[in-house]
Amino acid sequence: VTEIKALTFDVFGTVVDWRTSVAREAKAALAPKGHALDWGAFADRWRALYQPGMEAVRSGARPFTVLDELHRENLVALLAELGVTGLAEPEIDDLNRAWHRLDPWPEVLDGMDRLRRRYVLASLSNGNVALIVAMARRAGLRWDAILGAEVARAYKPQPEAYDAAARVLRLEPAECLMVAAHPPDLAAAAARGFRTAYIHRPLERGPGREAKRPAAGTFDYAAEGFVELAAALGAR
Amino acid sequence: VTEIKALTFDVFGTVVDWRTSVAREAKAALAPKGHALDWGAFADRWRALYQPGMEAVRSGARPFTVLDELHRENLVALLAELGVTGLAEPEIDDLNRAWHRLDPWPEVLDGMDRLRRRYVLASLSNGNVALIVAMARRAGLRWDAILGAEVARAYKPQPEAYDAAARVLRLEPAECLMVAAHPPDLAAAAARGFRTAYIHRPLERGPGREAKRPAAGTFDYAAEGFVELAAALGAR
Repeated sequence: VTEIKALTFDVFGTVVDWRTSVAREAKAALAPKGHALDWGAFADRWRALYQPGMEAVRSGARPFTVLDELHRENLVALLAELGVTGLAEPEIDDLNRAWHRLDPWPEVLDGMDRLRRRYVLASLSNGNVALIVAMARRAGLRWDAILGAEVARAYKPQPEAYDAAARVLRLEPAECLMVAAHPPDLAAAAARGFRTAYIHRPLERGPGREAKRPAAGTFDYAAEGFVELAAALGAR
Repeated sequence: VTEIKALTFDVFGTVVDWRTSVAREAKAALAPKGHALDWGAFADRWRALYQPGMEAVRSGARPFTVLDELHRENLVALLAELGVTGLAEPEIDDLNRAWHRLDPWPEVLDGMDRLRRRYVLASLSNGNVALIVAMARRAGLRWDAILGAEVARAYKPQPEAYDAAARVLRLEPAECLMVAAHPPDLAAAAARGFRTAYIHRPLERGPGREAKRPAAGTFDYAAEGFVELAAALGAR
């Protein structure tokens, strides 16, 4: 069996709790202006525009565009949809950077410290480099390398997103372990030869909307969080 | 005046002492096999093949090729030139990774800690990502982002190397401070709108071969090391 040398991580949902954090940021930006919205639903709706935005790039309908820009277009659309008006451009820019201010799940920093002793840790996110850098500095995430969509100029689950990560790390795909809370991401990585670790994040979509666990054996590893993954990999 | 937000660093010579480290690694690999060479001269000669290797890429004579591969080609040529024979391929691979095992100058870790509190720190090296990652993990260098030749697919001093770094950081060039011990690198960065900081590294080329300091005012900052640069920038 090929030795695992690097772990590549999905970020939104796997490393950080985007829903709670974006809801908090939206409330902080808009409540003082008199808007009373369901802030969790605001986060959900913004996130719902995420895949269509990337799909325009994947399909070739538009050139590669970084996620910060897609997020901003989607935010402008969402604000119009909700009838939120009167924000100055710098205020929209700042709210758009809500995605730079996402909190990690509670066991993430401890788990990453353990994993990093043994493995190269790289982000393999659809977030652009500046977004992941800002998030990492704020949250204390310690990436050895920031890879993903912008480096590959391809959005997951396109094969090139995974292929570029292994190539830049100068590893065989089988030396890379994709870590994600989302089975389609893991399946796409596996199709490119990556090993896979499923992380169960029951609260990603909010209370009462827990994802179904994949059947045992679907992926190489399955864990409730990064500390448990570290233990499963023998990285204590 | 535009606020500086990120520092982009040349690495070989500016952050790490390539000559002493490569000499040590070459001796460790070759002395036990009975080779008695001038190890500093070995490092110098290997380094001398560096610019011609990249120039073939810059000129378009060959497609973009990462530095790990150029280093290995140059190592094979150098071993032949010196009449060093009998190394197995994995031994050549390991010696080639001498460039992954370079030690920082003494004040670098302290200085980077101080600088990192205030600024995004990115490598902007001609070294490929896997090389810079391996070096950083071994030496304890803490990059927020690894940029440079491989991300830009252009070798410094080509303009695209600098342009790509600012673009990926989503900063204006004037928000980026290029930090380097080599005036041509700084001049090329300045030509793309970067601010510049010259770091004097008198021992880069070995004892008695100290570089001439650029005239006062040639660059925006000049310092004897990263701690002094941090002080000059007010990042204590």
